[in-house]
Amino acid sequence: MQYDGSSWRGWQTQPGGGTVQDTLEAALQRFALTPVATTCAGRTDAGVHALEQVVHFDTALDREMFSWVRGVNAFLPPSIAVRWATGVPGGGDGFHARFSATSRTYHYVLYNHPVRSPLLSGKAGWVFRPLDIERMRAAAAHLIGTHDFSAFRAAECQAKSPVKQMHSIELARQGDIIVITLTASAFLHHMVRNIVGSLIVVGNGNQPPEWIAAILAGRDRSQAAPTFMPDGLYLGRIGYAGTWGLPQEQPAMFPWLQRDHADVTDMATSREST
Amino acid sequence: MQYDGSSWRGWQTQPGGGTVQDTLEAALQRFALTPVATTCAGRTDAGVHALEQVVHFDTALDREMFSWVRGVNAFLPPSIAVRWATGVPGGGDGFHARFSATSRTYHYVLYNHPVRSPLLSGKAGWVFRPLDIERMRAAAAHLIGTHDFSAFRAAECQAKSPVKQMHSIELARQGDIIVITLTASAFLHHMVRNIVGSLIVVGNGNQPPEWIAAILAGRDRSQAAPTFMPDGLYLGRIGYAGTWGLPQEQPAMFPWLQRDHADVTDMATSREST
Repeated sequence: MQYDGSSWRGWQTQPGGGTVQDTLEAALQRFALTPVATTCAGRTDAGVHALEQVVHFDTALDREMFSWVRGVNAFLPPSIAVRWATGVPGGGDGFHARFSATSRTYHYVLYNHPVRSPLLSGKAGWVFRPLDIERMRAAAAHLIGTHDFSAFRAAECQAKSPVKQMHSIELARQGDIIVITLTASAFLHHMVRNIVGSLIVVGNGNQPPEWIAAILAGRDRSQAAPTFMPDGLYLGRIGYAGTWGLPQEQPAMFPWLQRDHADVTDMATSREST
Repeated sequence: MQYDGSSWRGWQTQPGGGTVQDTLEAALQRFALTPVATTCAGRTDAGVHALEQVVHFDTALDREMFSWVRGVNAFLPPSIAVRWATGVPGGGDGFHARFSATSRTYHYVLYNHPVRSPLLSGKAGWVFRPLDIERMRAAAAHLIGTHDFSAFRAAECQAKSPVKQMHSIELARQGDIIVITLTASAFLHHMVRNIVGSLIVVGNGNQPPEWIAAILAGRDRSQAAPTFMPDGLYLGRIGYAGTWGLPQEQPAMFPWLQRDHADVTDMATSREST
C-alpha cells in the first residue's frame, strides 16, 4: 500500500487514533464487516511516506483480489491507498509481513536549492546550502556491510540488536533533487534520518567523509548529526523470497524514485563486496 | 513565484480571503510596512498550481533583491514561496506582468493507472482507463495555430476575444505519468482543463482524434468534454521579451515538468509551421 504520511501520526495504532493503521483497519472492517487486525513490514514514523508498504491480515472472507483493492480504497481517504492484494498461506509457517521480510529499502528525497519549494513541501527535505554528492558517496561507503549502528539509533528504539547489514546506499542527483536510497536487512528507529543528517554535514563541507566512519565506530548517538526532518523519507521496496509470489510493482509516483530507472543520469552504487 | 494551489481559492483576491494574492499581499505588507498591490501574469483557479507565476508591484522601498525573496518568504506559508525578484521599470511603458507577457505555458500531469496514488493526490489528474498517447497527439495537432477556442471556453470567461494562438502541445509519457504541455499566446478561462478533458476522451478510445477538429470548428462548449479536475494543472513559463532581463529558472519541482529535459524519453512536439 501507499500513503502520504504528512497528515498522519505514523503507521502504528495509537489510543487517540490518527494513524495509518487505525485508518486502514477501519476501512478493512467496513469492507469485511468484521474487525481486521493488520501487521506491516515497516512501522513508519509521523510524516514519513510509504511507496510500497506491505501489510498482512487473516480473514475468512473470500473475495476477488481486485475487489479487496477497490472496496477498501473506497473507504480510505485520498492520502492512503491499497495498491494490490494477494492471498498467502497464514499460520506458523505462513507469510508474515514483518518476519518474512529479508530486506527493506528507504528513499530520502532532498531538495538542494537556496529557496524552498512549495510544491515539495512535506515531500522532500530542504537543504539550502550546496551539497557535494561525491563527498556524500564517499561517506556513505563507510556504512556498507554489517555494523553496530548504535550511533544512528534513537533512544526509544525497541530493536533487539543494533547490528544490521547495510546492503547498499545509492545517491542520485537530478537537477536540484538528490535521492538517497538505502537498502538494509532492517533499520533501527530513526536510523535513515540520522544517517541522512550526518551525510548532509559531510555534503555541505562541515565534516570530512571519514567522520562517518569515526561516528559509526564510536557507537555514540550524541556524536552524529541531529535527526533530519521526516518530510523526504519514503519506505520503498520490502524484500521477500520469490516463493511467496507477491506482486512487485514499480511505483511511478516520482520518476526519480523508481529503482532501475534508466533516466537517472548521475547514479553510483556502494555495494558490499561479499 | 511558486505555489501549491490545493488549499487555496485560486490566485485572485476575494472578499473572504483564502487566495494566493491575499496571502502574498499580506506578506509583502509585513515586509514593506505599507500596503502593496500586486498584478500577476496568469490568474489560476482554485486547486491549480504555479511553478513560475510572475507578479509585479510598485514600491518605493529600496532593498537587495535577495532580501525581498527571503524576507517575504518568511511571512508566507509552506505552500507559497517567492523564487526570485528583480527590478523593472514601471509606468506606462514599463513592465506589466500580464500585458508584457507574450506567451503562457501550462503543464497538465496525468496519472494513468488502475489504482489511485496517494502521493499524487492533488498533484495530478487520475485516469484509470489506459490512455493511448499517440491518439492524443494526433488530436492535439488539430489545435495548433490561431483558432476561435470558444468550444473550450468557460461561460464566465472575461476575455475580450476567443481567438488565441496555440504555439505547441507536447505530450510526454514516463511510466504511468503523462505530461501535457501547452504553450499559447494566452488561454481562455478553463481552456486547458477543457482541452485535457477532451484529449482524454480521445486517448481512452471513446472518440477519434478528428473529433477534436470538429469540436473546435463547432465553437460550442456543450460539445466538448467536461472540465477536467484542477489537481494536475501547473502554470509554467511566462514568455517575456528578453529586454526585460528577467531571471528564468528551470524549476526542479518535478523532473518531468522541466522543459528541455533530456530525460524525457518519449517526447514529440506539435508545432505550428508558420
